[in-house]
Amino acid sequence: MYNYIAIKGVNILRAVDIIIKKREGEVLNLDEIHFMIDGYVKGEIPDYQMSSLLMAICLKGLNSDEQTAFTMEMLKSGEQIDLSSIDGICVDKHSTGGVGDKTTLVVAPIIASCGLKIAKMSGRGLGHTGGTLDKLESIPGFNINVSSKDFLKQVKEIGIAVVGQTANITPADKKLYALRDVTGTVESVGLIASSIMSKKLASGAHSILLDVKVGDGAFMKTIEDAKVLAKAMVSIGNKCGRKTVAMLTDMDQPLGEAVGNSLEVIEAIETLKGHGDREFTTLCHEICAEMLLITNSVKNKEEAIKLIDKKIESGEALEKLREMIIYQHGDPKVIDDYSLFKKCQKVVEVKALKDGYIKRIHTLNVGNVAMILGAGRQTKDETIDHSVGIKIKVKVGDKVKAGDTLALIYSNGVREKEAIDMLLECFEICQEKVAKHNIILGIVE
Amino acid sequence: MYNYIAIKGVNILRAVDIIIKKREGEVLNLDEIHFMIDGYVKGEIPDYQMSSLLMAICLKGLNSDEQTAFTMEMLKSGEQIDLSSIDGICVDKHSTGGVGDKTTLVVAPIIASCGLKIAKMSGRGLGHTGGTLDKLESIPGFNINVSSKDFLKQVKEIGIAVVGQTANITPADKKLYALRDVTGTVESVGLIASSIMSKKLASGAHSILLDVKVGDGAFMKTIEDAKVLAKAMVSIGNKCGRKTVAMLTDMDQPLGEAVGNSLEVIEAIETLKGHGDREFTTLCHEICAEMLLITNSVKNKEEAIKLIDKKIESGEALEKLREMIIYQHGDPKVIDDYSLFKKCQKVVEVKALKDGYIKRIHTLNVGNVAMILGAGRQTKDETIDHSVGIKIKVKVGDKVKAGDTLALIYSNGVREKEAIDMLLECFEICQEKVAKHNIILGIVE
Repeated sequence: MYNYIAIKGVNILRAVDIIIKKREGEVLNLDEIHFMIDGYVKGEIPDYQMSSLLMAICLKGLNSDEQTAFTMEMLKSGEQIDLSSIDGICVDKHSTGGVGDKTTLVVAPIIASCGLKIAKMSGRGLGHTGGTLDKLESIPGFNINVSSKDFLKQVKEIGIAVVGQTANITPADKKLYALRDVTGTVESVGLIASSIMSKKLASGAHSILLDVKVGDGAFMKTIEDAKVLAKAMVSIGNKCGRKTVAMLTDMDQPLGEAVGNSLEVIEAIETLKGHGDREFTTLCHEICAEMLLITNSVKNKEEAIKLIDKKIESGEALEKLREMIIYQHGDPKVIDDYSLFKKCQKVVEVKALKDGYIKRIHTLNVGNVAMILGAGRQTKDETIDHSVGIKIKVKVGDKVKAGDTLALIYSNGVREKEAIDMLLECFEICQEKVAKHNIILGIVE
Repeated sequence: MYNYIAIKGVNILRAVDIIIKKREGEVLNLDEIHFMIDGYVKGEIPDYQMSSLLMAICLKGLNSDEQTAFTMEMLKSGEQIDLSSIDGICVDKHSTGGVGDKTTLVVAPIIASCGLKIAKMSGRGLGHTGGTLDKLESIPGFNINVSSKDFLKQVKEIGIAVVGQTANITPADKKLYALRDVTGTVESVGLIASSIMSKKLASGAHSILLDVKVGDGAFMKTIEDAKVLAKAMVSIGNKCGRKTVAMLTDMDQPLGEAVGNSLEVIEAIETLKGHGDREFTTLCHEICAEMLLITNSVKNKEEAIKLIDKKIESGEALEKLREMIIYQHGDPKVIDDYSLFKKCQKVVEVKALKDGYIKRIHTLNVGNVAMILGAGRQTKDETIDHSVGIKIKVKVGDKVKAGDTLALIYSNGVREKEAIDMLLECFEICQEKVAKHNIILGIVE
């Protein structure tokens, strides 16, 4: 049904023709992608044309070259962090977001204690997912607002920094994301992959380990969807000259025990002390091993695991965390005295109503319960309460009896009753034996 | 990949949820369609959300109920012409647009002479398609700007009026069409059908005959696409309580001989005198017969054809045209003396370069040639030259010899050389015998 009059000898790009091309399922070229994104950032392409293109992309997709072009355009739209003045290999780790995901707080100190450089810009939580910056801010005094200059200085001096965004990176991504959020065009693998990767590339690391969460508590609900996203991101990273590997990991139950800011920091410290939850510890060690491997810091996986174990046992990993806390003006005594964290008023037990096996834990809703207690924010402007949250005391496959504690709610009274009811409903108990989950579901490289 | 948090007991419509619902291929309900269109007309839904929805509709479609709901919302957005004060049956005819389509100028007087009422609001031409109003304005003095009151008075007194839009009908359609035009979302059967039908319903006729053009010179290039559109429109019309039938007719060659405003009026007059082009005459008679049938004015097709022949032979149909011209302040003497039309400076013959059979006539380009000569407009604001145009002297399947006249160009010197070259290229001549086209391709009721 589509026809257009070609004007002989003239080749003028028009937004409407590019939109129609994508609507018809054709592949956009570099010039067309540049025309749209550059024009959009400059205000020459209006929102209504961009949102129409975004919907066409949601329904017709972007191939790998288009995704890379999108990523590069967003990258070029803003500043890029130059880590070339840092000696050694800068490695980054990114999680697609889950419930109880405090992995960065454990992995970054271990990796830094192994001699690699962690120059990490992190994010805040939204909805059911937590953010590393919010967790770090539960440490009294901890400062995440660091200038680019001080950020580089810190990495050079102690090999580790986890901070908020220090520069105006990827403004195109910000403008596009705000539009996608209100036009029903968030859910596109190509757009998600290029959004994440443009920010990772702008942050400057040489090697990138992606932790793609899979399951009820993650954005990707199925292993198939997660694999597609992982492959897309790995392809973009490698095409742009950064060594990129993705791990697919389980988010069909909360990660570790704690969900909520100071609770998660305490769990991270415990893990660095060697007393962590078994699955969470496995995840951290596997991620660290992969980071050591992709940076050629070790010969093989065995050597990697040995090195990681050594850094935990010797206390060097924990010391790296302490160094970072001190450098960023936090109170390092929290590491030895958890009572220095802000305390909540009350701890409520949520108990099993019947005997059986834990069949499922509705992880998304566990995240939502933590959010309504005050541990997270529903909209970007809400403040959060660092002291509240949840501790999950059972795993899928565990045998429980009526009256056993399933979880603890750490509350300051906000929507407490509702939270208790909701949390109880998060646990499905059945009579048949249930298989336990593996934390690592696959690697995409 | 999509999930949303249901808020218990609260059911607030949000544009983004409705967009996502359509993106996922679900069916929108009446409330959702009302929310979007009513909100858009009121300025509560911004362009960028509407364009995203429109793209989702282009790619996921609208079912018959959704199309009817869209039509009704657009209808309700503006004024509606109330024809209830007119005695007798008001019948309307609408063409989806083609090249050389002067059918209304013949059909309306025939139908009015048969005693039915023609209260027709018509449109102007754009691009390669002509508009009835432009054609009528080539008659010296003819006035198409008639108030609603005078429009009704005219139909009551003489049974026929063809005028410009007299009221603010379907403003939602106007706003939506302007957005679709720049966001690559014109090409959707559901949106095209509801746009056309909302205007037809607002015009108030009890019965509607749709002439859906098929082929190179039409919006619908294939019989399959045309059937889908025809079925959609017929379904909407009947669901909204108007007897609606569609004919599928050939637009793979220009309709009749003339393309251009006064040339087409002259051809229409000749047809009413019984001297019309054979295929065009057949089309007009078939459309009139169908209009007589759907209004139950005749028992069967045979009776319809007899009545039409009688109205032509007796001159009553031609007299109806004369009455309308007089009523709308045009010079009725043009009917008997074509020299009273504005004359062009020059007539140029376009001749066959070789012997053979006419294989194809590139009808869209014939329309474009007429446009560049000045007979049409590329953008809404251009003025047109009523005297210029083309006469096509051959049909697909005709045998021609080198030097035979294929067409005549009526020119005032504007882009004349270009027009001659382009027009010559519109004719494909081959050595094998070629089948002639049927003008009527099917009926959808």
